[in-house]
Amino acid sequence: MQFSSSLLENAVNEFAKLPGIGKKTALRLVLHLLKEEADDVQHFSEVISRMRKEIKFCKRCHNVADTDICSICSNNMRKSDTICVVENIRDVIALESTQQYNGTYHVLGGVISPLDGIGPGQLNIDTLVHRAQNESAAEVIFALSPTIQGDTTIYYIQKKLPAGIKVTTIARGIAFGGELEYADEMTLARSLQNRLPIDSYVSSR
Amino acid sequence: MQFSSSLLENAVNEFAKLPGIGKKTALRLVLHLLKEEADDVQHFSEVISRMRKEIKFCKRCHNVADTDICSICSNNMRKSDTICVVENIRDVIALESTQQYNGTYHVLGGVISPLDGIGPGQLNIDTLVHRAQNESAAEVIFALSPTIQGDTTIYYIQKKLPAGIKVTTIARGIAFGGELEYADEMTLARSLQNRLPIDSYVSSR
Repeated sequence: MQFSSSLLENAVNEFAKLPGIGKKTALRLVLHLLKEEADDVQHFSEVISRMRKEIKFCKRCHNVADTDICSICSNNMRKSDTICVVENIRDVIALESTQQYNGTYHVLGGVISPLDGIGPGQLNIDTLVHRAQNESAAEVIFALSPTIQGDTTIYYIQKKLPAGIKVTTIARGIAFGGELEYADEMTLARSLQNRLPIDSYVSSR
Repeated sequence: MQFSSSLLENAVNEFAKLPGIGKKTALRLVLHLLKEEADDVQHFSEVISRMRKEIKFCKRCHNVADTDICSICSNNMRKSDTICVVENIRDVIALESTQQYNGTYHVLGGVISPLDGIGPGQLNIDTLVHRAQNESAAEVIFALSPTIQGDTTIYYIQKKLPAGIKVTTIARGIAFGGELEYADEMTLARSLQNRLPIDSYVSSR
């Protein structure tokens, strides 16, 4: 692409660095901003820059927060003795959007994956074990991706958790709206093994 | 979506205002920026804000520019007596990327479209006529979209241009890689009417 303005070119290049944004999309976004009011664009750039500078990570659960302790951990209405272990912030947002969970979270920051060079030391596992021990947790729920790495991580952490804690994982099975014939064998086999009494299925809908 | 941080939420909302960016994509982009170095994000936001504040529009051709006269207009190597009329800045970038054109441009800012409330008064037509008269232009090339609005605009402007100027439009026909059977009748009919001697076709490849 040939630009007649280096200001425009730099802005397009910055946008094109974002994941999934190519040069053409970047140009479209920049030309959109060019049409907007100068104050709005100033606001856009300030909000982004402020977000990066001022955002904090909760000291307890490692979720993003505006304060040292996130709004979920500091909410007295939530059951602090139930800890849902997730890979990243996105998973917290996805689970919160279901509005079905009333406990706290623990963001690991990934899963154990030796091929990618990620060992237990790089994940927030120690703080989780510490929480489980010192905050007299009743249940730890694993909501990790259903992969070998996820399962390895569950196995590793489970061994470190104090005895007597209830350890569960979110159910794996056929997704709502999914079709049986397109499900992989592993999922189908597991969903058959872990079949549910019809009463609990109907009441959970 | 439920966010545990208002800083994150505001940033996601700002990104989601951009065209073609939904909430989920916005979140992905913001979480990417969150992982980047603070300096890089600061740079990103400064480049965007500076672009909007400092960018200028060329006083001669209305293209984006860093200075009062854009780099294309001020380039002595280009033929200033040939003016290519385009709708917007994106078209200039597309034509420049072909590296086949050595004249100047004139950005109209749209086409005449009464249904959208765009009349000749809102477009940069007067400056084009002024340029054609005062800069002794030899040729005006219309590179507008092949729509009724584009054709209306060409007709309207052509009447205002001084007599003696060569007025042309870019060729319409079957695109390279296009298939005859999927071309619309209008395009096919025109490309038959305006058929080219095989010599000029071969030499232009």
